[in-house]
Amino acid sequence: MAQKHTQTCAIASALNIFGDRWTLLIIREAFYGTTRFGDFLKNTQISKNLLTDRLGRLVKDGIMERVEFADRGTNFKYALTEKGLALDVVMVAIQQWSEKQIYGAGNEPVLLTDRSTKAPLQELRITNATGDPISFADVDFAPGPGADKHAQARINEIARPDSEDAP
Amino acid sequence: MAQKHTQTCAIASALNIFGDRWTLLIIREAFYGTTRFGDFLKNTQISKNLLTDRLGRLVKDGIMERVEFADRGTNFKYALTEKGLALDVVMVAIQQWSEKQIYGAGNEPVLLTDRSTKAPLQELRITNATGDPISFADVDFAPGPGADKHAQARINEIARPDSEDAP
Repeated sequence: MAQKHTQTCAIASALNIFGDRWTLLIIREAFYGTTRFGDFLKNTQISKNLLTDRLGRLVKDGIMERVEFADRGTNFKYALTEKGLALDVVMVAIQQWSEKQIYGAGNEPVLLTDRSTKAPLQELRITNATGDPISFADVDFAPGPGADKHAQARINEIARPDSEDAP
Repeated sequence: MAQKHTQTCAIASALNIFGDRWTLLIIREAFYGTTRFGDFLKNTQISKNLLTDRLGRLVKDGIMERVEFADRGTNFKYALTEKGLALDVVMVAIQQWSEKQIYGAGNEPVLLTDRSTKAPLQELRITNATGDPISFADVDFAPGPGADKHAQARINEIARPDSEDAP
């Protein structure tokens, strides 16, 4: 697999975990309820070697855990950890983007609905602190407490002028 | 780059576009306002060959467009298309997951805020049709109009029993 990013950046760090062709497909399967090696294999059409590698990385990165079946000592199942389950929003975001931008309305392969009403989920939206949807053009960036020198310099370059203060 | 997925699946199709170590980092830069080849190079630390390849793919996939500078015939800038700009929610979802699950509260490299109030964005949440947050366990799946035979069979396997009807 490709070399790791070393930048102090939330996107780069996430890509170190799932920035490849297969990992999010394995995670999709886990969200679909798949737990066994053979079922991941069948449902993603990945090769055995790649699946072994990716599941090992996911366990190492704390996204999945390998649980022994109580009754069968040589068998394991793979389950999302809390850190892995927290990727639900990322998965829905990708799903909704892809439905709209790749497949197009009326051509969705899968519909995500609310189990109790069967009505489709709402589209995820970026919202400000009071819950109002805002466009990305209204998002500003500031160096966070975890920014190193390089990240600070970079973020200060891109911080957007205040609309009022703008020249 | 890895072979393409052929499954009829919104996640797989999205991974055919950005399922690698670099593409979302290039898109991050575009959201940060980067437009020039040399700036993408400097800010992502990617190699020239990979950047040329990835920008070419992004243009081919309709995520970015190459625009000629009016005054300099040999120079181009790269800008997100509407399809690319629609990835804003995906980027924020990954950012928020990574901040919380990798860096941890109080250790964020970058803060995303509302430009007009400087207050942090709200966390993206999965919501039902009436706007109430729901957990992923309450999300159900159904074959969509674009499902082929294989996708239909797969989704029917994972459709969740209605809470009321469950045995």
